[in-house]
Amino acid sequence: MIGVDWGTTSLRAYRLDGAGAVLDRRESAQGILSVPEGGFPAVLDAAVRPWLDAGEETVLLCGMVGSRQGWREAPYLPCPAGAAEIAAATVPLPFSGARRCFLVPGLSARGPEGVPDVMRGEETKLIGLLAELGERTAATLCLPGTHSKWARLEGGRIAGFATRMTGETRAVLLGHSILGRLSAPAREGRSDEAFRRGVRRSRDRGGLLHHLFGARALGLMGELAAEETDDYLSGLLIGHEVRAAVEDGGAGGGTVHLAGSATLCRLYALAFDEYGVAHRLHDPDIAARGLHRIGETLP
Amino acid sequence: MIGVDWGTTSLRAYRLDGAGAVLDRRESAQGILSVPEGGFPAVLDAAVRPWLDAGEETVLLCGMVGSRQGWREAPYLPCPAGAAEIAAATVPLPFSGARRCFLVPGLSARGPEGVPDVMRGEETKLIGLLAELGERTAATLCLPGTHSKWARLEGGRIAGFATRMTGETRAVLLGHSILGRLSAPAREGRSDEAFRRGVRRSRDRGGLLHHLFGARALGLMGELAAEETDDYLSGLLIGHEVRAAVEDGGAGGGTVHLAGSATLCRLYALAFDEYGVAHRLHDPDIAARGLHRIGETLP
Repeated sequence: MIGVDWGTTSLRAYRLDGAGAVLDRRESAQGILSVPEGGFPAVLDAAVRPWLDAGEETVLLCGMVGSRQGWREAPYLPCPAGAAEIAAATVPLPFSGARRCFLVPGLSARGPEGVPDVMRGEETKLIGLLAELGERTAATLCLPGTHSKWARLEGGRIAGFATRMTGETRAVLLGHSILGRLSAPAREGRSDEAFRRGVRRSRDRGGLLHHLFGARALGLMGELAAEETDDYLSGLLIGHEVRAAVEDGGAGGGTVHLAGSATLCRLYALAFDEYGVAHRLHDPDIAARGLHRIGETLP
Repeated sequence: MIGVDWGTTSLRAYRLDGAGAVLDRRESAQGILSVPEGGFPAVLDAAVRPWLDAGEETVLLCGMVGSRQGWREAPYLPCPAGAAEIAAATVPLPFSGARRCFLVPGLSARGPEGVPDVMRGEETKLIGLLAELGERTAATLCLPGTHSKWARLEGGRIAGFATRMTGETRAVLLGHSILGRLSAPAREGRSDEAFRRGVRRSRDRGGLLHHLFGARALGLMGELAAEETDDYLSGLLIGHEVRAAVEDGGAGGGTVHLAGSATLCRLYALAFDEYGVAHRLHDPDIAARGLHRIGETLP
């Protein structure tokens, strides 16, 4: 089968064998934002044509391609949900290049107070981790990013999840607040010590909004270099993310399973160490594994 | 005497009698950002010339005019500090229009963990509140704003303070994040119910970064109108500010004394009500009172 993780700014396509091994892969910057009106079938065809010519009959797509801004909207499926429920909720797509073409739905969940949460694309990665960890495992998963996802696996399904807007908050503060005006590009790469200092600060009282201003005051008082501001701010925000997850109990029940970009995962591992949270790093390529697992149970 | 509260984007000048009553006032948009290189004496002269002609001899300035970007830099004075310490740390300015012209210094403080904090301009308002409350009062003060200040008065002095970057965080999230793209201008003015809902959400577990994403998920699920997003976000952020202050004990010791813009104070009063924190609203014109109080003890 062919699996495609089609996000806002990138397209990652995999040719998978019957056991889920990646036979071939293609990656491009043709995210959904770059696709012209009505252009989705043509872009997909161009991306996977050689594999179709070689006889592949099934294409499974996940990510923002299933959002309102994508090819077609696949409604959010409520948690708890496993591979079978997700496969049953896939949306067929009109794509003449393959015999079968489906969209993976996003997931929704409700927190203990009834407030909703949503994901689109990450459900496939979580199913990939679930396949890797074994269906019987109860586990906490963390996918760091612009909108970090913390999910709980139970009984072979995604029981629920919580999103934290860590990456986007960092980006807008650096780009548009007084903290960005204080910041200078690091001369010698990033500073783990400034990052750790930010994480340690997140453990104090005072709240995130106070700790943010502290980055400015440290700069004014000559106690934080301009080149360290970015890393300190990352440490503060990721630290507050981990702190809240620990306080929620989401990270308290044993090892946190971590998957995502190597750069981000490395920072999260540093933050977990500061908080004394056990963690295990997984292959960043779990989307392919998730696409295969969902594909196995397609109707 | 003449007192001037000269900030980044505005200039407020007061003519004060010997008892501190405001005899006359002028306000303009000539904040320090609009003053050309070397132009501070001329702008000040133009703003207060009639009062100088009428015989006033002393001018006292506070606010960002005393920052590195202002007329001259007045170093931060460490807390604890009262009117006398602040008056003794004023910086004389070369202004030929008056017999005496001084800059009020900003204040610095250190939190329990040693992290610094700073203010410039708000120290004068706090001294004004101190004069209003009486020098023997121990009290918690809150000055809401772009960078909200929470201060503790003890023994006639400002014992310490904490800044929370609430207003600026709201502005950058609304202006530059996915939350702003979800938001639409309110058709019928602001919604107190959406604001209160945000405040109530701040009391839940999960952390601010999770609650922020919740505003998006509520919108996607049709449970928060686009016109309510702004007020809900304000409630979340001000709620988290009040929550942290309560947890710090800063707002736990009785009535919080609140002063600032009428619009903001009204919102903070709603948030205090949700948190069960007693509060008392003060005259927004406390800067004039503080300038007078500091002026009384000038050397």
